[in-house]
Amino acid sequence: MATMSTLFAKTPLPSRSLSKSNISHFAPPLTSLSFKQKTTAPHFKLRSIRAGLIEPDGGKLTELIVDKSLRDVRKREAATLPRIRLTKIDLQWVHVLSEGWASPLSGFMRESEFLQTLHFNSLRLDDGSVVNMSVPIVLAIDDEQKRRIGESTRVALVDSDDNVVAILNDIEIYKHPKEERIARTWGTTAPGLPYVDQAITYAGNWLIGGDLEVLEPIKYHDGLDRFRLSPAQLRDEFSKRNADAVFAFQLRNPVHNGHALLMTDTRRRLLEMGYQNPILLLHPLGGYTKADDVPLSWRMKQHEKVLRLTF
Amino acid sequence: MATMSTLFAKTPLPSRSLSKSNISHFAPPLTSLSFKQKTTAPHFKLRSIRAGLIEPDGGKLTELIVDKSLRDVRKREAATLPRIRLTKIDLQWVHVLSEGWASPLSGFMRESEFLQTLHFNSLRLDDGSVVNMSVPIVLAIDDEQKRRIGESTRVALVDSDDNVVAILNDIEIYKHPKEERIARTWGTTAPGLPYVDQAITYAGNWLIGGDLEVLEPIKYHDGLDRFRLSPAQLRDEFSKRNADAVFAFQLRNPVHNGHALLMTDTRRRLLEMGYQNPILLLHPLGGYTKADDVPLSWRMKQHEKVLRLTF
Repeated sequence: MATMSTLFAKTPLPSRSLSKSNISHFAPPLTSLSFKQKTTAPHFKLRSIRAGLIEPDGGKLTELIVDKSLRDVRKREAATLPRIRLTKIDLQWVHVLSEGWASPLSGFMRESEFLQTLHFNSLRLDDGSVVNMSVPIVLAIDDEQKRRIGESTRVALVDSDDNVVAILNDIEIYKHPKEERIARTWGTTAPGLPYVDQAITYAGNWLIGGDLEVLEPIKYHDGLDRFRLSPAQLRDEFSKRNADAVFAFQLRNPVHNGHALLMTDTRRRLLEMGYQNPILLLHPLGGYTKADDVPLSWRMKQHEKVLRLTF
Repeated sequence: MATMSTLFAKTPLPSRSLSKSNISHFAPPLTSLSFKQKTTAPHFKLRSIRAGLIEPDGGKLTELIVDKSLRDVRKREAATLPRIRLTKIDLQWVHVLSEGWASPLSGFMRESEFLQTLHFNSLRLDDGSVVNMSVPIVLAIDDEQKRRIGESTRVALVDSDDNVVAILNDIEIYKHPKEERIARTWGTTAPGLPYVDQAITYAGNWLIGGDLEVLEPIKYHDGLDRFRLSPAQLRDEFSKRNADAVFAFQLRNPVHNGHALLMTDTRRRLLEMGYQNPILLLHPLGGYTKADDVPLSWRMKQHEKVLRLTF
């Protein structure tokens, strides 16, 4: 559904109110921002401040990219396996899964994960804990593809140029209950839902789940890959920058004044609570968004300009 | 949706295979059943046997019938309140709620409970624990009823003869998103779902939630009320009978051989596990079931006969 583009701003936040007439100057340069070390908060009694990064869902970041040393072996193995050609959206999901954005998923959902997502919007893990999981991350295949897979327990996933992207291991093939999937995910079966039209209605009647081994990090070669940090890279970045709080703003639009005010206010509150180095993660959605959205490349130009002016 | 009729059988279980030709003799008399005291199980290593009744969901059985001493006061209060006339199905839900079958619900769902049920098939309680709650238990009202309620914080619920059945306190009125409710509950919006046709499609556009005070235990005066034990009465009964295990069989049909085999097998396994006095709760569904089901009164006759022959 969406791959992730990321930008950092240590302090892309205005210390004065925004000029509506000039959005590109919405933030003053860094030096004008106050970094007074506050030891007590004006409004909140300071008791304890958590400064560790929160755990990934399930306790461990599930990265699914094979070690370089295994890449060639896996490529040779893949050559012998039945192939499934990925759509553009499928490939974006491989990207999401490969970097651990959907931890603790180890690949496309098997039926038990799919059903838990449909019915409970969450997954129960082996240790009894429950994590949010409200969107089915599934791979559809049609009758002919299912027939070709036959008794194989592994399949190779290939891109539109037939390059092997990943291997799906220990596969499970089960029915794709499209109407139920749509009804339970969106609460309606009305025609015209963009993702439904794009990725479900004409998709195959079967879903295939399994453990994913991705051969190389997914890249898009669109000039924006440098913004696409993985969760592990983000976590490193937070540590390098000595963040004692991270606040994220995810958006599908260019930054506008309302967004900026939300970010400003959040930063102010974090400082008031006693945090000394809150870091903003500006998190534009890439991949499949709405057809009439401002294209990602333009949004990124705006975000970059905003950040350049900030620092 | 369903009120509950209950029958007990200490041992309505065959010790020999069933005769297909004579269903009413499916079980031998009690005396032919073996009650050997087993201290170790043949297949399972006996470690510890739980013999306490499980807790009601949420830790406490939520009974909503007002104390007799308050009944007259509440009746007088009800006379001054806006009235909502209950359908037959609404009244059955009042019954379900009043006796704690839907613990920990304290009345018809408010919006936050309704949304949790739709999205998570469960409710998160104040202490962070989660209980199953997959069916919305809601009361629909129409625009005119909503107008008549106005600013009142309480309403009286009346039956088809205008007798006050209950008071709903601290009410919350919110939109009845019928399509979403149907889609998320059934995973389809296809026409012809019996409960949808009966209780949702023509119901009002609003839902009203609140804390329920039921004036008297709900009775149906159909000759079957003696079978309708409340959860509290059932729990007493289990204790009186010194059950060290209770196994329940809920059914919407007359008992047939397959059912009987399931019950037999369950009892056998419980004895093998080391339980010494497992009790069967035979639990026919009453209330709104399918239009072409065998009527409850006939099913109960069959169950009674079966049990009489068993003892």
